[in-house]
Amino acid sequence: MEHADTLLAIFVAFTAAKVGGEVLERLGQPGVVGELIGGVVAGPAIAGWLSVGGESGRTLEVIAELGVIVLLFRVGLETEPRAMRAVGRQAAAVGVLGVALPFGLGYGLAAATGHSATESAFVATALVATSVGITARALGDLGVLHRRPSHVILGAAVIDDILGLMVLTVVVATAKDTLSVGNLVVLVLEAVVFVGAMLFLAPAVATRLAHLLEAPRTARAPFAIAMILLLGLSVAADRIGLAAIVGAFLAGAVMSATPDREKLAHQTEPVGDLLSPIFFAFTGARIDLDPFTQGDILGLALAITAVAIAGKLAGGWLGARGLSKAERLIVGVGMVPRGEVGIVVASLALSEGLVGPDLFGSVLFMVVLTTIAAPPVLSRLFARLAEPSRG
Amino acid sequence: MEHADTLLAIFVAFTAAKVGGEVLERLGQPGVVGELIGGVVAGPAIAGWLSVGGESGRTLEVIAELGVIVLLFRVGLETEPRAMRAVGRQAAAVGVLGVALPFGLGYGLAAATGHSATESAFVATALVATSVGITARALGDLGVLHRRPSHVILGAAVIDDILGLMVLTVVVATAKDTLSVGNLVVLVLEAVVFVGAMLFLAPAVATRLAHLLEAPRTARAPFAIAMILLLGLSVAADRIGLAAIVGAFLAGAVMSATPDREKLAHQTEPVGDLLSPIFFAFTGARIDLDPFTQGDILGLALAITAVAIAGKLAGGWLGARGLSKAERLIVGVGMVPRGEVGIVVASLALSEGLVGPDLFGSVLFMVVLTTIAAPPVLSRLFARLAEPSRG
Repeated sequence: MEHADTLLAIFVAFTAAKVGGEVLERLGQPGVVGELIGGVVAGPAIAGWLSVGGESGRTLEVIAELGVIVLLFRVGLETEPRAMRAVGRQAAAVGVLGVALPFGLGYGLAAATGHSATESAFVATALVATSVGITARALGDLGVLHRRPSHVILGAAVIDDILGLMVLTVVVATAKDTLSVGNLVVLVLEAVVFVGAMLFLAPAVATRLAHLLEAPRTARAPFAIAMILLLGLSVAADRIGLAAIVGAFLAGAVMSATPDREKLAHQTEPVGDLLSPIFFAFTGARIDLDPFTQGDILGLALAITAVAIAGKLAGGWLGARGLSKAERLIVGVGMVPRGEVGIVVASLALSEGLVGPDLFGSVLFMVVLTTIAAPPVLSRLFARLAEPSRG
Repeated sequence: MEHADTLLAIFVAFTAAKVGGEVLERLGQPGVVGELIGGVVAGPAIAGWLSVGGESGRTLEVIAELGVIVLLFRVGLETEPRAMRAVGRQAAAVGVLGVALPFGLGYGLAAATGHSATESAFVATALVATSVGITARALGDLGVLHRRPSHVILGAAVIDDILGLMVLTVVVATAKDTLSVGNLVVLVLEAVVFVGAMLFLAPAVATRLAHLLEAPRTARAPFAIAMILLLGLSVAADRIGLAAIVGAFLAGAVMSATPDREKLAHQTEPVGDLLSPIFFAFTGARIDLDPFTQGDILGLALAITAVAIAGKLAGGWLGARGLSKAERLIVGVGMVPRGEVGIVVASLALSEGLVGPDLFGSVLFMVVLTTIAAPPVLSRLFARLAEPSRG
């Protein structure tokens, strides 16, 4: 069969992720970090199959994308709009500060070390977006998705994903000299409408859906309807220029207000268990460790990592005012992992010739370190926190 | 995002399948037929996205393949090796006769209507393989997977899948003049080892696996291990020249003898619910109805369909001696749907220039009719059958 190579790549990615996850679990660390490391280790092998005509790579990318949208759907399902709204002020503040501070610090550092304005803007952009996928999975592994700091983190992560995409759009347009005020206004409006719909419209839509969910004759119709909503909103979010994961999150938020919420959480669990390790292994497999064997970029890489961590810690701490100090620290740490978005931005900039290999390598280093370091710290901080007052 | 088109195609395929399934359920027919018809109707739309660089098409093909291997894994999980072995003699006889009779009748018909030996051999090959996916899904929809005729049908369908692949290999090699006795012997040996392993080795392997399944720290480790086995055996079966679905079936048969069987059946249900409608819609979408609007091939198409049905009915009836008459009839009808394998063979032959468009169209007609007609008949025959003595 012609797509045997793709099936083999899926097998290797999934197996590497689960073996890595098991090793890290045995070390008392979150499994998601192991899945990423499994991907890093299996990367060269996977890349070998990926290079077969490039089509296997594209296919694995789509399956990884399905994995991350199911993941975000499940996150949306866990975080009811009402609970999110209760921490809306903090989430918004953390989201905005968590974009502004890393961007400012990153730009300053790159400019101070002799890089051009365009290069500095790209590095700054790569520091912006918290990886909501990795954070959500780590919080899920810890069983703390329902707790207050988690709501702030996830709300803020979704907001900074949206802001991050807007910053990227602006930076790319500036670099290519194609920025128009019209484009910018449309993007801002879309983002506002989408987030507004998520927080305020979702419960109303869910109430209507409740009737529809019980009407069909098909076995397990609510699951099928939820998947149609998930795929539909993911496509829609993508089409209007936001990320597919934003639509997936919204679909989950809508379904979280229906009576089928618990059942859907149960049914989407194995779907996520199958697909999301492929996403993490795939993300890990894209990390190229070669530049670091040379060693000469280590100083820059460490400085960028420090700035990336400091920016998010400060953003979380300052933005989450009104929560306890322990919770504010958790919010700051929870915003630290960058993951796939940073990699996407850096790869884009490198392939367009807008940054050199030193900055590219440093951004990758930052992504790996923040992603691997944050979950264990989160785990300890949550262990210290007393059992919560829900919401 | 660059793969937005693929996500859209997935959305359309899934939605079309579920809407079609719902309509057919309301008409009291098996949902799987509706999923196929949904695919036929949405076909032109899906094909529009598939044509985008061809990569979306390949990706959808792989996802459809994942859907069918999960389906076959679930079938393997339901049909314990012990129960299969109990009807092994009948299954083998039905499988062999169900290959020999349609092949002979198909070859005779094609030759008698003035087609060449190569053309006749290809038509005959396209008549051979029962679509175990469609049959299994129809039996599952009817809730009769555990009954004796179902065991015979599924055992025979797996055997004739394997025989069908061997026939195809031989016919292609003959047409291209590359058949060697060595190749043939290797293929036969592989098939025997695979089927033997499925029926006799699986329970022993499962007993060993039982310890391994409980050892890992990872949450839901048995599911992860089952998925690794599923992907691994599918790749292995594919690599040695059998179909991936044969490996998937074997993986299910192994897991069916473990204590986690019930839990796995439960966990793989939503995975199948998400992925297998994409397979059926995709299969439906490949059916091109254009040749029939011309009408001039209708006679040939009907004759081939009649031969295809008669061959499998006779094979089932004669092979299932020892069962009741009602059960023998069910076995015959259960072997009738051809589905994806017939389409694959016909497309292969057309693209190699080995058959003309008249035979190609006729084979597609046969596939559609047998696939759509058999499930409702099965449903009635099972309704008439008294509740079973298990196994």
